Amino acid sequence: MRICEEIGIDFLHEGAREILRKAGCEVDSDTPTVRMDRDFVMEQVANAPETVTLIPRNPQRTVVFGGPWAAFGQVASPPNVSDLDGGRRTGNRKDYQDLLRLAQIFNCIHFTGGHPVEPVDLHASTRHLDALFDMLTLTDKLIHAYSLGTERVEDAMEMVRIAAGLTPEEFEAAPRMFTNINSSSPLKHDWPMLDGAMRHARRNQLVIVTPFTLSGAMAPVTLAGALAQQTAECLACLALLQLVRPGAPVAYGSFTSNVDMRSGAPAFGTPEYVRATQISGQLARYYRLPWRASNANAANCPDPQATWESAASLWACSTARANIVYHAAGWLEGGLCASFEKVVIDCEMLQQLAAYHQPVGVSEDDLAVEAIREVGPSGHFLGADHTQARYKTAFYSPFLSDWSNFETWEEGGSVETARRANRLFRRLLDEYQLPPMDPGTLEALTAFVEKRRAAGGAPTDF
Amino acid sequence: MRICEEIGIDFLHEGAREILRKAGCEVDSDTPTVRMDRDFVMEQVANAPETVTLIPRNPQRTVVFGGPWAAFGQVASPPNVSDLDGGRRTGNRKDYQDLLRLAQIFNCIHFTGGHPVEPVDLHASTRHLDALFDMLTLTDKLIHAYSLGTERVEDAMEMVRIAAGLTPEEFEAAPRMFTNINSSSPLKHDWPMLDGAMRHARRNQLVIVTPFTLSGAMAPVTLAGALAQQTAECLACLALLQLVRPGAPVAYGSFTSNVDMRSGAPAFGTPEYVRATQISGQLARYYRLPWRASNANAANCPDPQATWESAASLWACSTARANIVYHAAGWLEGGLCASFEKVVIDCEMLQQLAAYHQPVGVSEDDLAVEAIREVGPSGHFLGADHTQARYKTAFYSPFLSDWSNFETWEEGGSVETARRANRLFRRLLDEYQLPPMDPGTLEALTAFVEKRRAAGGAPTDF
Repeated sequence: MRICEEIGIDFLHEGAREILRKAGCEVDSDTPTVRMDRDFVMEQVANAPETVTLIPRNPQRTVVFGGPWAAFGQVASPPNVSDLDGGRRTGNRKDYQDLLRLAQIFNCIHFTGGHPVEPVDLHASTRHLDALFDMLTLTDKLIHAYSLGTERVEDAMEMVRIAAGLTPEEFEAAPRMFTNINSSSPLKHDWPMLDGAMRHARRNQLVIVTPFTLSGAMAPVTLAGALAQQTAECLACLALLQLVRPGAPVAYGSFTSNVDMRSGAPAFGTPEYVRATQISGQLARYYRLPWRASNANAANCPDPQATWESAASLWACSTARANIVYHAAGWLEGGLCASFEKVVIDCEMLQQLAAYHQPVGVSEDDLAVEAIREVGPSGHFLGADHTQARYKTAFYSPFLSDWSNFETWEEGGSVETARRANRLFRRLLDEYQLPPMDPGTLEALTAFVEKRRAAGGAPTDF
Repeated sequence: MRICEEIGIDFLHEGAREILRKAGCEVDSDTPTVRMDRDFVMEQVANAPETVTLIPRNPQRTVVFGGPWAAFGQVASPPNVSDLDGGRRTGNRKDYQDLLRLAQIFNCIHFTGGHPVEPVDLHASTRHLDALFDMLTLTDKLIHAYSLGTERVEDAMEMVRIAAGLTPEEFEAAPRMFTNINSSSPLKHDWPMLDGAMRHARRNQLVIVTPFTLSGAMAPVTLAGALAQQTAECLACLALLQLVRPGAPVAYGSFTSNVDMRSGAPAFGTPEYVRATQISGQLARYYRLPWRASNANAANCPDPQATWESAASLWACSTARANIVYHAAGWLEGGLCASFEKVVIDCEMLQQLAAYHQPVGVSEDDLAVEAIREVGPSGHFLGADHTQARYKTAFYSPFLSDWSNFETWEEGGSVETARRANRLFRRLLDEYQLPPMDPGTLEALTAFVEKRRAAGGAPTDF
């Protein structure tokens, strides 16, 4: 609050500053800095809903952000992609589509948080049209739109509306999609991000505001300082969005981690990341906002380091009750690469986390005193009626773990986890089924893409 | 309590039953079953200390079991050992010694919970003498003795006493070592375990009682049932030990996990294991006892599965505040193999967990509002005074993580985590330094081993 009041946040968007000035904020005429007092911030943030229901084109895929709910999205926005067979390569449409197919297949993936890999082979002006077309046809789950220019944002909202067969009024009646914007830390919100965020808010679509506060680089080296800055940057923008549309669906985004102080490289899944994430959850609940965190790591291949860093990130999300888990499956290299094998490994971890959150029954039947009496000191529970009646569903059954003994595992070729994940994603892609879409809707969506392509798409010079 | 009262626990040790009978428990004359009422159990358990301080031969290595403290021990008792160079092989003295050297080197390892690998090449009658000699000379940390027969237990206590240069009275004045016994679930304590436990308790040395309650096999398929049985088996034995010596140092041990219902193979680090472990922590605190849990997995090599299962086990220990973490470093294959690389990987995870538990400062300096003001919206924190004054100690610095970018990593040979761990443990073994021992003490210890060897060691026919 002292940062918002005394230091201020830069809003590099004249329209945004004008809205804030009219609401009584202190706006300098010669700098983009805006200062707002704590009562104003708290009042605006209190207008934001505590939970938000988002309805994608298939309403059976409806997702709730907030409260006790957790939603997982695939890795978003890496420029590179890799698998064990083809190695690491620049992002391209084929891999982009295959990753979307996996996002559709895995039940533990609830939304697409951006391009699972950047399809760099598509021309930048029209890439968003093709990429959104793929996303809206290859999956029927909740999607995200990048706030990277007016045309892209308007195109995305229009395509989501068309894909769901909605009128403009129906589209605005409820959140159907979302965007995520990052502040340009320290203390700055850029024009494209603010423009996109306001456009989403105006039409009742959800905006996550995630400051990019790497401790020691774009934020203080102390966790408390980095989190204070994260919170100030986030809340100042959320206040703006509540002025744009009171009650607009928004979320508190956290991404605070540390950098390697020897190289300046970002690190994730570290002890600092875990604590920053857990405290962010406490902050989000204090402000009664849905909260976004991430499953991140800084490893270069899907090996133990990638796994312990991701596991630490996910346990932070789990213990702190993250509502929106970005990059939940497939992230490597601090976000510079999407790994097909890591998608599968992460989905296994996500399913295990979900199973872990199932409550433990303590009924008389669960306590099993009669079964213990029946089996007695010389018996075995495998054959007991109590076991036989429950064994099929008693335990979570993993799809990627190999629990065979060493000899059996060795006879089977000593196949390690990453190779098993490789075999599994290839089989899943073979079995992939396109989610249904009404032919008229598909035609309208295709026509929209072609019309916008013919018009040149979006400018690429900002 | 209903299990202790109504069903009873089998104590396969006449002396133990006699002690319990004299204390008023219901002891059948024709079966080994003992029933005890809940008031008796609670009264005896209340005599046990809530925290126990254990002093090994080097008092600077003193460890506290209980309260807010966590202590980590290396993997214990696997019959096999592996590393990337030599592959998997039967346990032997050389690897046993090398694992002990690593236990001595890593600061995050506080105790030896048994043989880090079974030195099968040593004759069973005298193996305990050589193994204890190695353990007491290659490390100066807290050690464990197996309760596998009277001679072995007495030899172990005598060797710990000699190694610490203590009189028998000094030895008994405080806990200097510990044993861990497993019940033979369901509902049974075997003779060697009870004999060893009582011998330790009588001389004021700590006993951990850990039921072997794999849910679906040796315990009910329901977690509540398995945990009820675990607790009954544990508390019944702890009550006996409190009769043997009121106030004897003891600990509640938990090991409840599930089996793979398709094969019957034990599984670890599963969602069931995590919940069972967390609930065990609640139970131990309810009974005000130090609590032992484990870092376990069922993978066949140090790969992502081994890592996520271990990470889940360790996060369960961390969130539930386990006091004594058995098998904290090096365990593979559900305990059938000690892996040198896994030792290093686990120690990295242990250090990260320890760093995570450091409190987050929230002083005015930590909140860094002045630093945020000074850096402003166009600056960078790397060069800020606030950062420069703190960067050396601000973040945990891992020894095994590779945070270089992909290109640098690739140029360096794309070395994955397990291979980095391999290089590191070899370097550490090269740098190992024997902890000092008084020459007279070493002579006395050697003489004891030779005397007992000449006498034939321990019988091997039980």
